[in-house]
Amino acid sequence: MTGNIDVNNSATDRSIVLLSGGMDSLVTAAIARTESSKLYFLHAKYRQRTEKRELQSFKDLIAHYQPDGYKTIDLGYFEEIALSSLIGENDSIIYEANIPGQIPDTYVPFRNANLLAIATSWAESIKVGKIYIGAVEEDSSGYPDCREVFIEAFNRLIKAGTTGVCPIEVRAPLLHLSKKEIVLKGMELSVPFQYSWSCYYNNEQACGRCSSCRLRLKAFKEAGIDDPLPYLERE
Amino acid sequence: MTGNIDVNNSATDRSIVLLSGGMDSLVTAAIARTESSKLYFLHAKYRQRTEKRELQSFKDLIAHYQPDGYKTIDLGYFEEIALSSLIGENDSIIYEANIPGQIPDTYVPFRNANLLAIATSWAESIKVGKIYIGAVEEDSSGYPDCREVFIEAFNRLIKAGTTGVCPIEVRAPLLHLSKKEIVLKGMELSVPFQYSWSCYYNNEQACGRCSSCRLRLKAFKEAGIDDPLPYLERE
Repeated sequence: MTGNIDVNNSATDRSIVLLSGGMDSLVTAAIARTESSKLYFLHAKYRQRTEKRELQSFKDLIAHYQPDGYKTIDLGYFEEIALSSLIGENDSIIYEANIPGQIPDTYVPFRNANLLAIATSWAESIKVGKIYIGAVEEDSSGYPDCREVFIEAFNRLIKAGTTGVCPIEVRAPLLHLSKKEIVLKGMELSVPFQYSWSCYYNNEQACGRCSSCRLRLKAFKEAGIDDPLPYLERE
Repeated sequence: MTGNIDVNNSATDRSIVLLSGGMDSLVTAAIARTESSKLYFLHAKYRQRTEKRELQSFKDLIAHYQPDGYKTIDLGYFEEIALSSLIGENDSIIYEANIPGQIPDTYVPFRNANLLAIATSWAESIKVGKIYIGAVEEDSSGYPDCREVFIEAFNRLIKAGTTGVCPIEVRAPLLHLSKKEIVLKGMELSVPFQYSWSCYYNNEQACGRCSSCRLRLKAFKEAGIDDPLPYLERE
């Protein structure tokens, strides 16, 4: 933890951002920056294959945005409890685009509920009124915990399960943006896309082939912008 | 993790129990035992003062109930994010009984949401349909995340944020029981109360003076049963 947290200030304009280091959470952080007097970044390690690379992105984004505080949370137990091709050493990540109506095997069961619960505990403790998450419902993964209905349910859970002394609200400003619109929003806010990481593999360079890389490259192409991240190959 | 988990069996009669090692979660586990074909125990360490003592209770209860599987989850980050007199080394635990309408300083912000989120991730991964929690709304702590409105909100969150392939439901069978009724329910189910731990202090013997010990002793007294746990002092 860095930065002093003054718990007596008004909470409503202070924000925690869940920052994986990917493109969506980066643009979300940039939006939160414009809407907050104080900013706190929260990053989770959960034995995802790209844990090390994501942490590097997180550090680069801390250096860039200089938040008032940040934390890296170790959810090592996810390796034991959560079945997902994103976690551990197996090689089953799909290279194909997502199939409509199917949940991809990269889905980490109920991950966003876990992350938002941690953020809420922190927010209630230091009196922060807003939690930002880069969930995208449209044009994206098909994960159930990235949908508006989930965010709304979480906000009702916060109302039911916290003291209410400091009202806390989850915001997901990208929820209904297309990937192309997210890139354009990021350009508008001058986000450092070169620091973000989307690839499902933990390499020096993004693979350009996994479904996450392909979604990202397609978004930049549609936006007419060159992705500043180096790729091993581009289609 | 011990025990083999066959993920192909019917999920609806398999259960995960959140087991702190306290009296309420113990009676909850005994109820779950009667309602489940397979039983899994989940325990959390979160730098609570009584972490070591609770873990001993958990181990004793594993030996007693022999669940089909169990896990101890390390939430070490709670020490950093959650402000509570239960966590860490400070000496501010209140000795007085709870004051109606006030949240005790032993409240751990949004703890139960964190625990239920972990249990849900595990349940979705191994196809378990029920999660038991020993939350008590009446005659108890005043914690917001022990209320029926919270449990209901969590069940709606699960519906919104999981795939639905394996429907999962949180059950809190003690929610509207008094502490006395919980003792009587435990006696009916022959629970080994001697293995449970309720004291807020991490000693060889329960203090008998903290609000948790007093609630427990009062419950046994009202039930007309002698608490088999040794106490340093009893009023």
